[in-house]
This record gives sequence, structure tokens and C-alpha cells, in this order.
Amino acid sequence: MEQNQDDKKIENNLSTIKHTIIVLSGKGGVGKSTVSANLAISLSKKGYHVGLLDGDLHGPSIPKILGVEDKRPEASEKGIAPVLALPKLKVMSMAFLLQDRDAPVIWRGPLKMGALKQFIGEVNWGELDYLIIDLPPGTGDEPLSIAQLIPNSDGAVVVTTPQDVALVSVRKSINFVKKMNMPVIGIIENMSGFTCPHCGKAIDIFKTGGGQKASKDFNISYLGNIPIEPEIVKTGDSGDAFLTKHAKSDAAKAFEKIVDNIEKKVNKKQVK
Amino acid sequence: MEQNQDDKKIENNLSTIKHTIIVLSGKGGVGKSTVSANLAISLSKKGYHVGLLDGDLHGPSIPKILGVEDKRPEASEKGIAPVLALPKLKVMSMAFLLQDRDAPVIWRGPLKMGALKQFIGEVNWGELDYLIIDLPPGTGDEPLSIAQLIPNSDGAVVVTTPQDVALVSVRKSINFVKKMNMPVIGIIENMSGFTCPHCGKAIDIFKTGGGQKASKDFNISYLGNIPIEPEIVKTGDSGDAFLTKHAKSDAAKAFEKIVDNIEKKVNKKQVK
Repeated sequence: MEQNQDDKKIENNLSTIKHTIIVLSGKGGVGKSTVSANLAISLSKKGYHVGLLDGDLHGPSIPKILGVEDKRPEASEKGIAPVLALPKLKVMSMAFLLQDRDAPVIWRGPLKMGALKQFIGEVNWGELDYLIIDLPPGTGDEPLSIAQLIPNSDGAVVVTTPQDVALVSVRKSINFVKKMNMPVIGIIENMSGFTCPHCGKAIDIFKTGGGQKASKDFNISYLGNIPIEPEIVKTGDSGDAFLTKHAKSDAAKAFEKIVDNIEKKVNKKQVK
Repeated sequence: MEQNQDDKKIENNLSTIKHTIIVLSGKGGVGKSTVSANLAISLSKKGYHVGLLDGDLHGPSIPKILGVEDKRPEASEKGIAPVLALPKLKVMSMAFLLQDRDAPVIWRGPLKMGALKQFIGEVNWGELDYLIIDLPPGTGDEPLSIAQLIPNSDGAVVVTTPQDVALVSVRKSINFVKKMNMPVIGIIENMSGFTCPHCGKAIDIFKTGGGQKASKDFNISYLGNIPIEPEIVKTGDSGDAFLTKHAKSDAAKAFEKIVDNIEKKVNKKQVK
């Protein structure tokens, strides 16, 4: 009974959301949350109503990246109201629910499934054009729960860095997505190449091209690559969205192209 | 009954291991596995018998970093024999047990606890001076299981990168370790500063100094910092251990100092 009520709440909530995009990575530290945050910002600036669900329960970083870490969601009879990061961008994260920012979330799998159910079923997302779900790296409880809770998502965007060690993990992610019968929207290669700000010469920190290779191997779309830019780190730390502050940088331009690609691939249904 | 037998196996196995060091990070992609691998190599080169347990079940990368990904552990009546990466370095990883390298491990918490129990209780580690355990990022099932399975470890080494977003997570890790009553050996700041190989000027990619700040805030030891070095990425990909190939680089020297610090802190008991 309880189970069915939960499922019904989730179904009700998802019925007013047009597109759900799941952002995944094989390993951590590839910039997945930064990509998720800037994807959400970019879509909301194009006029869409966007929700961003931070599905990383142990290490939620979306509120910090968006500069809303001190805000708190409010409860009403309609459910929990997500935090408004921009006029058309609603955010929900475990970080909002922790009294102490430094407190670790020491949870095993079943509790995590419960939290994600609440985030989808009991948060009052309202009418959304896009719900972006930023998941923790790997193929454990959180991605598995989301795949089961949202069986009809538009699909997964897989973020990687170019080095081989990261690509071993990305291949696992792609196979995970396929096993879950989730469509793959495409791959993004982040931290792809770097230019010295002093002498202007190219430096290969993490190499380049690995994401493109994986996309060919698996016959899935390559959405584009984003160069390393120290400003992205700084804006992530200061809570200024990168795309807001550095709209003309190479990284921002690369990012806008990627968003266009995602929009084209996903937006086959009519979105107002 | 089953439970007690498992516990006894683990107790037996741990009784021939002098020191157990757990390597943790708040978020992924901070170079934790690279640090674990090079710590294990460095200790084994000093003449110690070392075991390295890759506790990242979803994204095991230790075998790739050590160039032993094609090897397989052998079963005998004494248990599963770990893979020998160097004359005095034994390795165990989920990667050795997967038939298909690209196959995702889609497991929820309880299965993960079971796998880690086997890795500790049924792998024939033999006499070891050090067992290094590389855990996946965060404060979920794997770190929780290890903390419960090995209540008397020498403690945790926490790896971070310097930017604020990473430090939010590292603070959670430290609080997790304290809640588990595990000693903290200290913090390592990785990807700390970068020098352009063309013009020699310093570039702040991820900033510097955050690890040191966290160590002061929590009153725990600062073990040292490791600069970004593209060669570390390359050797990680090619399976040559960084310390073997680039013993005279700045990063290698920084690393050796860190290992000395860890050795001093841990090595109060007599080790042959």
C-alpha cells in the first residue's frame, strides 16, 4: 500500500514534467555537477522552466555551485517547495536538509532509495520543461534507484574526462544505461585540453579525444568537449554560475553548442 | 553462525597484518587511487610487504594504474591468492573478477558489504606490514562497511584537491572518520598548483592551500601536497607506476615526503 502511494505521487509529479535528463559519469571529479548546473542555467535562460535535482546524497555540490547553499526549501500542503536559484530554475539537494554543512550522510542503500523517492515524489516541482538529475558517479544505489523510479526518462548524458583511466569507467556507465533500457543522449568530454594563460601554448593535462573514441566504439552521439578553464573552478567556488559570468569564454561557447545538441536531441516533443 | 565464521576469517586474516591504512576522499576524481597506488609502491620499495585492496567496486582503477589489469587471482585451499604487482606488493580488485572489463557492477549496499568481507576474509594476504585500502569517494556503503569490518585500523588518509567545492566534501569525510572512531592519519592535497611546461610560469588551476586550511580547522596532520603533473596521468594510463618512471620529478619528491610522514605517524609498532 505504502509502496503504491509512493509510486502514485511520483507518477503525478512526473506527469507535469516534459523532459527528464539524467547526468551520469563513470568516475568522480570529471565535472559532472558543473556540467549539470550549467546545463540547467543555460536551458532556463532560453526560457524553459527547469528543475535541477542534486542526486548526490553524500557529496551534494549543486547548491554551492549555484550560490544558494544558505537557502532552505519550505514545506507547504502541496509538498516541499524547491529552492529558486534563478527565476526559472528550481533546485533540490540533500545539502538543503543538513543542519550542519560538514555533517556526513552515513546512509546505506535502502535509505538512499527513500530519499530519492521523496525528492521526486514529494517535492513540488510544478510544471517543468526539463528536469535535470545530477547523479553521483558509478553504477551503485543512486543511479539504480533513479533508473527504476523514472523508467521513461529522455535519457542519459554521460560526462567524462579524456584520460584512459576515466574511460574505463565511462564504458561501464554506458553499459549500465543500456542494461537499464535508458536511452543515451550522448557523451560530453570535459577538461579537454588546456591553454597556458601566460604563453598561450597548449598543454595536454588529461589528453584529448577519449570521449569521441568512446562515442564511436558504442555508436552513440558525441555532444562536444569543454576545455579546462581555471575560471570555471573559481566561479564554482564563489557560487557565480560560469555561464553567467564568462559568457564569451571558449568554455562557455563550447558549452552552448553542447546544450544546443542536447536540446535538438531531446526536444522532439513540443515544448512551450 | 555464518556471520560468526565470516568474522573469524576476517580476524584471522587481519592478525597477520601489522598496519592497515584506509585512503578516503570526499569527492571523486581527486587522485585518490593514484595516491593509494603510489603509496603502496613506495612502501614496498622500502622493503615492506604491502597489500593493496581496491575497495572501489563500481569503478576499480588500481589494476589499470599498476599495469596488472590482465592478471587474475588464483584460488587455492588457502583462499584466493592476490595478484603480485611487484615482488612485495599484492593487489586485489573487483576488476580482476569481471569477465568483461566494460561490465558495470550494478549492486546495492548489502552485496557490496559481502564483496568487501570476501576481499578481507577470504583473500590470502599472508604476512603484511601494510594493507592499504583504497575506498570509493563519499560516506556510503563501502566506507561504512570497511569501518565496521576493520575497527582497529591505523587510520585514514584523506585526499583532497584544493578548490572549495572539494573541501566541502572533505569536511564530511573527516567527520565521518571521527564518527566511526577511526584515527585520522592526515590530509594530502593533490593537484596542488601547476607549472606551465612551456614557459615555466605558475598557473592556478585548482588553487592551492585548501587542504592545509582544512587540517588546521580540524586540528589534524597535514601530510603534504602534490603538484599537477601531466606525466602522472600518462603513467596512470599506461600502467607504469609514476614513482618508478619519474623518480626525480617534483611530484615524486613531494610524494616521497608524504610517505615518510605517513610511515612516521603509523610506524610506532616495530615493523621488520
